[in-house]
Amino acid sequence: MPNPLIALDWGTTRARAFLIGEDGTVLDKRTADRGIQSVPAGGFPAAFEAIAGDLRRANPEAAILLAGMVGSRNGWIEAPYVACPASPAEIAAAGLRVTLDDGTAATVLPGLSCDEGAFDVMRGEETLVVGLGLSDGIACLPGTHSKWAKVEGGRITRFASFMTGEVYGLLREHSILSRLAEEPAGEDAAEGARRGIAAAARPGGLLNAAFAARSEVLAGRMSGGAVGPYLSSLLVAQEIAAARAMFGGLENLHLVADGVLAQSYGRALAAAGLDHQLVTPEAAFVAGVARLAADLPA
Amino acid sequence: MPNPLIALDWGTTRARAFLIGEDGTVLDKRTADRGIQSVPAGGFPAAFEAIAGDLRRANPEAAILLAGMVGSRNGWIEAPYVACPASPAEIAAAGLRVTLDDGTAATVLPGLSCDEGAFDVMRGEETLVVGLGLSDGIACLPGTHSKWAKVEGGRITRFASFMTGEVYGLLREHSILSRLAEEPAGEDAAEGARRGIAAAARPGGLLNAAFAARSEVLAGRMSGGAVGPYLSSLLVAQEIAAARAMFGGLENLHLVADGVLAQSYGRALAAAGLDHQLVTPEAAFVAGVARLAADLPA
Repeated sequence: MPNPLIALDWGTTRARAFLIGEDGTVLDKRTADRGIQSVPAGGFPAAFEAIAGDLRRANPEAAILLAGMVGSRNGWIEAPYVACPASPAEIAAAGLRVTLDDGTAATVLPGLSCDEGAFDVMRGEETLVVGLGLSDGIACLPGTHSKWAKVEGGRITRFASFMTGEVYGLLREHSILSRLAEEPAGEDAAEGARRGIAAAARPGGLLNAAFAARSEVLAGRMSGGAVGPYLSSLLVAQEIAAARAMFGGLENLHLVADGVLAQSYGRALAAAGLDHQLVTPEAAFVAGVARLAADLPA
Repeated sequence: MPNPLIALDWGTTRARAFLIGEDGTVLDKRTADRGIQSVPAGGFPAAFEAIAGDLRRANPEAAILLAGMVGSRNGWIEAPYVACPASPAEIAAAGLRVTLDDGTAATVLPGLSCDEGAFDVMRGEETLVVGLGLSDGIACLPGTHSKWAKVEGGRITRFASFMTGEVYGLLREHSILSRLAEEPAGEDAAEGARRGIAAAARPGGLLNAAFAARSEVLAGRMSGGAVGPYLSSLLVAQEIAAARAMFGGLENLHLVADGVLAQSYGRALAAAGLDHQLVTPEAAFVAGVARLAADLPA
């Protein structure tokens, strides 16, 4: 990378900006509540100025990469999905130029599409997968809508989305279980996790295992504080089992997570007998935009 | 059955009362908005009087059976669960006597519990299963919390609950899919059902297949009107597959349903290559209370 890089992870509800040095280190970063849903039509140059205008002025030679929902239909410009399999160079080549308030250019990165089984898309996560630098392996990116991606020969060949985090929230906050669930205390988290992982392996599937939490609590066999950890571990273990069924052995697995997601996925992966490397989302993003910047067409 | 029978299917939000003749035919019936959640403590004799007092006065010799949540902790009296395996006679014997305003007696029927895999309970559905008169077979009772029960040698040996209807409502009304879903029109219902059943057979499971609806609609590959039927069929097909994994071949399968549930479960069972007999919930309830009344201890 010949120059510093200014990169934004610009999502629906917030934007995170990074100034990345020539050696790949983060020189500056900040987060702004300026997700694309808060930006009016035509307001993206001004929004960029508010988020990172000072970084641009201080680094007039820096390339600027904008990743995530900023490239969606409701973003700055719609950067069409690149169909898998896709290499970093192919992703970079599909970036679209936009013009900042000062007349200089930035590149809006595209998302990826995959048409194996069900049609699926991602926008933003592909940059994190690229940042893992895999030749062959699997990336797991937990979240509201978790993504799993398979990399073969340095190209992202397939991926799949799972509504895991969202279904957790629906069951925990809006289902019949929400009235039984309490804040975990004492051994609740460990007990709930152990039970949820065990329940995921039973033949009744999610619809049966979710309801079982109610019966177990009403019968005094499980504490209300274990309900949340039970549901979380049940869903994560089912996501992992489904990914294994879709992608095979899950060799060279990289988990892109931090905080509680790193813990819960790490525990469920270990219970499934799967080794993994843990990478933080920030490290994966920074490495990903650095790689894509190096691959940008001249 | 030596005398007429007054039977109430008395649930959380409503009560349905039947006057059943000696030959098992329904002589009178009515529905009241007097579910147990609307009855104050101590108010059950008065609630019965309001629902069915006239039936009692006109049939002073009738036995009175009260089934469903009326036997729960928040009902008239808590009738403890009978553990499976349970015969009709064992269920009837566990009924508890309560006294009406006029000093005559009624019997509150118990629910069932099952401790295979996860602990599970039912209250009310056991009466419908009894009403099928099975010696050996499987009962499927669709609903907010569907139940499947296995009958062997005339006893209910195992059952399991599935949060199918409730998860449908959460996904259809409260998830990211709710914004994409529209009222079905034209071929939407058939297309959604076909796709949902196909999606249930893919390896990604519910969490992947639910999210796929979003990607397919956003890509213009599925209509918004197909989202609801897709989700419904996906969930029903997964419930059926899970029941098959839990209970085996599903020989002599009886579906206790009417209306749209009879249609959607019937279609998904046929797609799974499973024959079934269709029985309405009312017919199953009436036959069930008649059988249990005959088995009441003298």
